[in-house]
Formats: sequence, structure tokens, C-alpha cells
Amino acid sequence: MEQTIKGYFPNRRTVRKFSDRKLDDATIDEIISLATKAPTTGNMQLYTVIVNRNPEMLARLRPMHFNQPASVGAKALLTVCADFNRFSRWCRLSDADPGYDNFLSFTSAMLDATILAQQIVTIAEMKGLGTCYLGTVTYNAAGISEILNLPELVVPVACIAIGWSDDDGEENERLPIEAVRSYEQYPDFSDDEIIQLFKAKDDYAPNAKFVAENGKKTLAQVFTDVRYPRGMNEEFSARFIELLKDKKFL
Amino acid sequence: MEQTIKGYFPNRRTVRKFSDRKLDDATIDEIISLATKAPTTGNMQLYTVIVNRNPEMLARLRPMHFNQPASVGAKALLTVCADFNRFSRWCRLSDADPGYDNFLSFTSAMLDATILAQQIVTIAEMKGLGTCYLGTVTYNAAGISEILNLPELVVPVACIAIGWSDDDGEENERLPIEAVRSYEQYPDFSDDEIIQLFKAKDDYAPNAKFVAENGKKTLAQVFTDVRYPRGMNEEFSARFIELLKDKKFL
Repeated sequence: MEQTIKGYFPNRRTVRKFSDRKLDDATIDEIISLATKAPTTGNMQLYTVIVNRNPEMLARLRPMHFNQPASVGAKALLTVCADFNRFSRWCRLSDADPGYDNFLSFTSAMLDATILAQQIVTIAEMKGLGTCYLGTVTYNAAGISEILNLPELVVPVACIAIGWSDDDGEENERLPIEAVRSYEQYPDFSDDEIIQLFKAKDDYAPNAKFVAENGKKTLAQVFTDVRYPRGMNEEFSARFIELLKDKKFL
Repeated sequence: MEQTIKGYFPNRRTVRKFSDRKLDDATIDEIISLATKAPTTGNMQLYTVIVNRNPEMLARLRPMHFNQPASVGAKALLTVCADFNRFSRWCRLSDADPGYDNFLSFTSAMLDATILAQQIVTIAEMKGLGTCYLGTVTYNAAGISEILNLPELVVPVACIAIGWSDDDGEENERLPIEAVRSYEQYPDFSDDEIIQLFKAKDDYAPNAKFVAENGKKTLAQVFTDVRYPRGMNEEFSARFIELLKDKKFL
């Protein structure tokens, strides 16, 4: 199952359907161990991964992810948390005064946790496993924190549904590189250029079908009115800020 | 320069010294293109990478990173920004009302940007390039935003110093997996267990040397008193929150 740059990176796909094949501790631990070699802020390793496979725990977690299909079929959910708790405890036990109950420390820990999460995804996929991020982790972060018994200075920031693949995943169309990469300064696109950069996405057949199914006029309206509407974003923003305060990061 | 899972992941190292070998557009663009196949929230690609190689631009950026050696020697700096601006403009041009001027949208974009950054690092390193994250990007994010001309809903969250390697990098000791991975719930470590988990790190010869050089009693004190002291964290927290407000994410 070893893969090279050219074999894996241009072709990777997110998988939302998993086979019944068991995912054992040794495989999970090997992937996480390799992933911890990823870069981390000042080598502080500001993260903790909670691995859930217990059926009762999964039954409590899935509703936090709105029972989305990937959360239901996965053999395990890996909740990756920004964690300054373990490091702060070590400081106090080492005659040092930790000053990490602030927002900069949260961003450093979120960076570390996300880097680790992506390294887990890459290694797992290169080994032939399927993965899918559950973006819902920040929506119901407070509920997830309670289920996982997260203490102060620990907040979930990424969740990976994982298992052996049962399908090839979906093709993932992407914007042309000119849309997302700029030399020297932020690009000064005209309205026409923005329209052109998104044109292939607007015209992509599965997206057009998506627009029709949702009774919308444009693909953008599917995002703003159905998938990520303002009211939902504002509601979950308020809840996430509340959690950061509860956990002493704000 | 193709590498496999077992060749690369257990051995990767951060590189802070770069050779004079030029890093051309084609190499940079190939790496970023491959990286865009990484997962992204709802396929929105909430990121922009600004590539800086122009000597005058680099001369302005380096002081924002306190002129740390990796920022001085790098052939290019890649500033990866959380970006809801491009997507919001497309929405408005598509008769849709974008509701992404809030904190949840910032966390989604920061997640996307960090996932992309880590994929860039992995691909670059597998191709034989050296990389080093500059954690200072969030410290002076406002200054960097001004230099790169970042608009509303765009905030830098990761910066990668990159070039062809001139050394093997530093060994990166890590905590045992038991410290960072837990099954089912957050681990309930005793104080003694915390001390044991960090023992190899405390005893590691280069760390012990670091403690002596800084005139401290413990390794933790090097972090709390020298590298990441409370006052600095609180000062840069306030500045970063101010920037999120300026850029309409808060």
C-alpha cells in the first residue's frame, strides 16, 4: 500500500463510505505515531487525538455531527483537539508559570492540531484507508467536549471519520491555481476575472444538478441559502466563542 | 526525489538552512497545485497562498518574522491566508448573499489554510526541498497583511520558509504516543504520569544544554520565561483579535 508523490497527491479523494473491515489499534497508533513527526510550534505538540470506536460513544458523538453519512459508516472517529492543558500542567510541575490562557495560544494549538490532522489524513490515505473531515466539529464543539470529557485549554478543532474504503470517493474539482496562488501581493481581481475563475465550477455538471435539486438559481445560492447560511454561521460562532471562554482561551 | 510512506514520514525534519539553488515558478506552482487536492470545507477552498521571492518584498517581510534565520535564508516565503473574500465576492456576483463575516467562518478558513499549508510542506519535503514554518506569522499578522495588501476577510495564518536544503535539519524528539493519543475520552493523567511522559524530553541532551545556556532550572522555564512568556502571548493575542475585527471576522 506504499504510495509515491505522483501516485497519491494528484488523485486523492475524500471517502464517505466505509467497508466492514475492522480498524485495529496497531494501525491507528502507527498512523498517529508517524503523524507526530509533523512540524509543531516550538516542538510543544499542542494537540491530543481522541480515538472513538466504542459503539456507545459513537452513538453519542454522531448526533453532534448531525448523523452525516461519513460519521455513521466510519470505523472510528478521530477528534483532534487543540491542547495547551498537558503542556501547562508539565510547566507547573516543573516550577514554571505557564501563560497560555489566551487567544494567541489557541491559534498556535489550533495550527498544531490541524497540521497533525492533515498528516494523519495523508498517511492513512497513502496506506489505503479512506478519510473524511467532519466540519461539524466546530459547530457542536461544546457538546463534543462534554462527551470526551475535555478539560480547560482543550478544544476540538478537527474530526476525521476513518475506515477501510468501500468506494473510490468523489472526484474533487478545484479552482485553477491562478485563483488561489499569487506572487508578491494579494491579487487585484476584477469582477470579470472572479467570474471566469469560478466558471468551470459553475458549469461542472454535478454542481448544476445540485443547483436544480435545491431549487436555486446559482451554485453560490446553494452555499449561502442551504449549506452555510448566515444565521447558522452566526449561531455557531457565538457558541464557539462561548466555548473558548469556558476553556480559558478567551 | 520520489518518496514513500516509510521513506519519508518517520524521518522528516525541519530545515532552517537553505542552499543558493534557485526555486523556480514551475516547482512552486506544481507543489501548490498538488496541494489543492487536499480536503477543504465544502470544497470552498478558503485560502490564498502569497509567494514572495522579490528581494525588496522579502526585506520588508523578514523583520515581521524577527529576522529569524529560516526567514533570512529561504528562497521564498509562502504566506498562507485564511480567505473568505474571494468566495464572498463570487457569491455577490452570483446573486447570493454571503454570510461569512463571523468567527465560525474564520475557523473554517483557518482550517482550510492550515490543511493546505501542511500539504505543501509534505509535498515539498517529499520532493527534496526543505521547509520551516514561521510561527511568528500570527504575532505580526497586521504588519504582514499591510505588506501583502490583504483585503477584508483575509488573514495570514501560516508562513512557510522554503528552499533547497543545505543541511539535514535537526532531529525532532517527540513525546511518546501515550501522551498525545487517547482512546474514547480525554486521559486522566496523574501528576506523576505527566512527569514521566515528559521525562525523555527533560533528559534529552540538547534540551539540557538549552536550559543551561538560558540560565534556567528546568526546560519548562525556557518556554515560560524565554520563548513563549505570558506578556508576549497576551500582547500578540490582543493584536490578533484586533486584526480579526478589522478584517470583519469578529
